[in-house]
Amino acid sequence: MTETVTLTLAEAGDLCLRVLSDAGLDGRHAEVVAEVIVAGQRDECHSHGLYRLIGCAHALASGRINRAARPKVTDLAPSIVKVDADFGFSSYAYAEGIGLALDKARSQGIAALVINRCYHFSALWPEIEPLAEQGFAALALTPSHSWVAPAGGTKPLFGTNPIAFAWPRADNHPFVFDFATSATARGEIELHRRAGKTIAPGLALDCDGRPTVDPAEALRGAMLTFGGHKGSALSTMVELLAGPLLDDMISMESKAFDGGLGVTPCHGELILIFDPGVFLGEALGKNLARAEMLFDAIVGQDARLPSQRRYEARLRSLRGGVTIPRPLYNELVALTNGAAEPANVREQRRPA
Amino acid sequence: MTETVTLTLAEAGDLCLRVLSDAGLDGRHAEVVAEVIVAGQRDECHSHGLYRLIGCAHALASGRINRAARPKVTDLAPSIVKVDADFGFSSYAYAEGIGLALDKARSQGIAALVINRCYHFSALWPEIEPLAEQGFAALALTPSHSWVAPAGGTKPLFGTNPIAFAWPRADNHPFVFDFATSATARGEIELHRRAGKTIAPGLALDCDGRPTVDPAEALRGAMLTFGGHKGSALSTMVELLAGPLLDDMISMESKAFDGGLGVTPCHGELILIFDPGVFLGEALGKNLARAEMLFDAIVGQDARLPSQRRYEARLRSLRGGVTIPRPLYNELVALTNGAAEPANVREQRRPA
Repeated sequence: MTETVTLTLAEAGDLCLRVLSDAGLDGRHAEVVAEVIVAGQRDECHSHGLYRLIGCAHALASGRINRAARPKVTDLAPSIVKVDADFGFSSYAYAEGIGLALDKARSQGIAALVINRCYHFSALWPEIEPLAEQGFAALALTPSHSWVAPAGGTKPLFGTNPIAFAWPRADNHPFVFDFATSATARGEIELHRRAGKTIAPGLALDCDGRPTVDPAEALRGAMLTFGGHKGSALSTMVELLAGPLLDDMISMESKAFDGGLGVTPCHGELILIFDPGVFLGEALGKNLARAEMLFDAIVGQDARLPSQRRYEARLRSLRGGVTIPRPLYNELVALTNGAAEPANVREQRRPA
Repeated sequence: MTETVTLTLAEAGDLCLRVLSDAGLDGRHAEVVAEVIVAGQRDECHSHGLYRLIGCAHALASGRINRAARPKVTDLAPSIVKVDADFGFSSYAYAEGIGLALDKARSQGIAALVINRCYHFSALWPEIEPLAEQGFAALALTPSHSWVAPAGGTKPLFGTNPIAFAWPRADNHPFVFDFATSATARGEIELHRRAGKTIAPGLALDCDGRPTVDPAEALRGAMLTFGGHKGSALSTMVELLAGPLLDDMISMESKAFDGGLGVTPCHGELILIFDPGVFLGEALGKNLARAEMLFDAIVGQDARLPSQRRYEARLRSLRGGVTIPRPLYNELVALTNGAAEPANVREQRRPA
């Protein structure tokens, strides 16, 4: 048996806000974090859903996150907006800076939203999908903590360094992908360790630089990039464009800055925004149709578009709410200061 | 025995110009094409070196390339320069537009150089490495011809869709990578076919969508992307950003446009240029040093930086000239209108 709890999205949002509030985070800062976590749960990205609240509460308890952060937006150049997150969560800085960045994209054609000194706990798609819903294309990059070896090397250096991209579609959810440049997610290795299972070959090295399928050895050693030297090159690009280009830390600095506390990584983020309306003018409609021709040709040969699974999950969640394991629900409630659980939480028992 | 011919870089340039001129290409158009081909040969990128002249001559003979092309530069938006290549070679359009694009990067922080209706025969690094030598970071993308299946699919759709990136280094050659998002180069499969060798598993599918190691089957079927669904997602991004965003063809349109002639692909190209001086101001030096810390950590664990092999080859070529097989040299001379070969060409005989 797996005991589960089903919450409406509103109830899930309330739970987020209670946990965050009781961890000392209030107002807009808490609201945007809750929105991102609910979106993750809604799309059944479980590791970025309500489960992630535990990490956020830990990060807040560590004292590292600035609960009183006031993101400072700077109009750095005609095509660059810079937001100093003031050591708060990235989502808050993003929310404060994105309006000006979109204005710049509309007037210049391209704009960069630079976020500095932020703690990043979320996936990247929640930041770029809404831009594509407004008609923009966007590319987002962040480093993380040194866990991944460069191709040909054996020691942790790069972060899991995600790359996310979004493209607008008139009659459909945006085309969105968001993936780590590491061969797998660190959380996946941790889940295998907990389950006592081996990991697939080709994902990690042990402390002596030898290939390993033992998840505990992999966590002590180094993860590998996806796609060999090509993935390694892309990961290097993420370090450079979302670190030194922005006057912010590379993954090895962020790891050292953490000092073993295990807080969500502190670093910079780069979001590039393209306004197809400026690039294309009157040819916009014709070219959005051309992109649809590409998507049709992909799904026409039974290949999937990235994010399709998320969109299908979203539809289920909007209709029937989100379902999480009872132990996770209890753990989250325990993080609140003894508030009673909502009366309308539905409990379910399902075969494991 | 393999008989070879060694040319100085000047002699290689003269040979390029003679072949191009006798194929009807003159002036600045020919000069920039010759420069790019000599740079490829100098760096021992043999498939993009003097060998590529055969493809250029074929393309010119096909009548598709506009020998009289006059690239038209448009100041499209504060951060966008658009160059209509007028169906000439991409390198010419690039040369005409890059100056204004760099001016825009300096004033805006970021700029896009958009090239339309160009025939692209070269690698992408010759276009972005010189930008990094001038202190810029740059990212370049192009589609090609439909040869590659999306992950989960079985039919050719994407091009080999290269991604190239460059980062400036004060006391070193720039950090540069340039790779196809296909699992291997189409030319590599062709070389295996000629040599009667099988290709590695995981690179291609046959016409029925089954994995194949037979290069002839692979050329008739579909190539695969590198890195599974992640490489496939990146390849889709290249199609979108260097196709519909620019009002230019995706790889399936470019393939259809070619109509079986086998001319080098006609399409658009996107080059994004970042000026770290604008992003960083007074923090520029500190952050270039931070990037060097990353490079030191890569080579410090005996991993290689991309392009190192090219830079080592360049040093050899600058000292001792470039060496090509005698049959290739003869084939190139035969493409000229009977001009005598330079008296100072040194012939060598080497063990095969």
